[in-house]
Amino acid sequence: MNEHAEPVERLIKALEKLPGVGARSAERFAYHMLDAPQEETMELARAIRDMKRDAKECKQCYNISGEDECRICRDRSRDRTLLCVVETYQDVTAIERTGAYRGLYHVLRGRLAPLEGKGPENLTIRRLLERVKSGEFREVILATNPDMEGDGTAMFLAQEMAGLDVKVTRLARGIPSGGRVKLAGKSILSDALEGRTEL
Amino acid sequence: MNEHAEPVERLIKALEKLPGVGARSAERFAYHMLDAPQEETMELARAIRDMKRDAKECKQCYNISGEDECRICRDRSRDRTLLCVVETYQDVTAIERTGAYRGLYHVLRGRLAPLEGKGPENLTIRRLLERVKSGEFREVILATNPDMEGDGTAMFLAQEMAGLDVKVTRLARGIPSGGRVKLAGKSILSDALEGRTEL
Repeated sequence: MNEHAEPVERLIKALEKLPGVGARSAERFAYHMLDAPQEETMELARAIRDMKRDAKECKQCYNISGEDECRICRDRSRDRTLLCVVETYQDVTAIERTGAYRGLYHVLRGRLAPLEGKGPENLTIRRLLERVKSGEFREVILATNPDMEGDGTAMFLAQEMAGLDVKVTRLARGIPSGGRVKLAGKSILSDALEGRTEL
Repeated sequence: MNEHAEPVERLIKALEKLPGVGARSAERFAYHMLDAPQEETMELARAIRDMKRDAKECKQCYNISGEDECRICRDRSRDRTLLCVVETYQDVTAIERTGAYRGLYHVLRGRLAPLEGKGPENLTIRRLLERVKSGEFREVILATNPDMEGDGTAMFLAQEMAGLDVKVTRLARGIPSGGRVKLAGKSILSDALEGRTEL
């Protein structure tokens, strides 16, 4: 026999599916909801339902959006000649948070992973090439992750864009800001040395 | 301008109301739900709604229950002559988890707190006294918290039950199992000394 009343137990089980939420956190959340005002808790239930219903991919860039075209693509104040290619919509959020980028995006929906059978046709590469071929962009920044598959994806895209009249760049790699040289791994330090800049 | 699409942003705001959930965790949960199967995420939304609708207080003991009478009160295999009085339904869960108690419960819904204007009439004390006066119980264990208000509440209840044919006990207090004598505070050590047992 289980410790909780059935409706509470069912909620705890559902909460445990969230990343990093174990039995104790799920219980704490459930108890909070039990005691919280009806309106606050029902708003959470509705927000979950509405997000699953309303969130979709932007028709232009495949970013998550509440409408057909995302806010970034709709924003006429942005630099529409600059395109940043990322693996996932979470990467868009991370880059937006910096405030250091004012161009547009293209979300690949993953990266090339031949071993998992993930080829160009599983990503949004065809649409990316269409956008780039339209000639709107002066620069495409390949911001896939700095790992084997992200690098491979960037390499593939650079080759596909080789004949086009567009500058293709890749995010800089090196020692993370705030990091310690003595703690950086071999490949991080190699990258940092190779990419050293003149002062 | 905000980093997330409107439906995602709304969900993040709702998730941030949960205890210990900051902006980053809320975002992680929201992204998880965005990518998780429709059915898994909708089950969470429904479980929240159903719990708020179905969870109620047991008519006997005021524990949280999906039905009019909670599972513990309905369980005929329990010792129905033993009553454990606690402040909240979370205390029931904690005690049940030990597996060391097989009697019934009574949830006070708080403790006496004169400074906050919380008197006996704000708790379920009248019903508790009715239950005890019925003569069903041979022992009432007062398991309110070992702090000023919990002690005050236990004292009050003990006085109210003074004339009745029932043994009234209080949870033992002392050094917590796994704790260190050298780290225990003054009042913990005083309790432990006063309550010392013969070996």
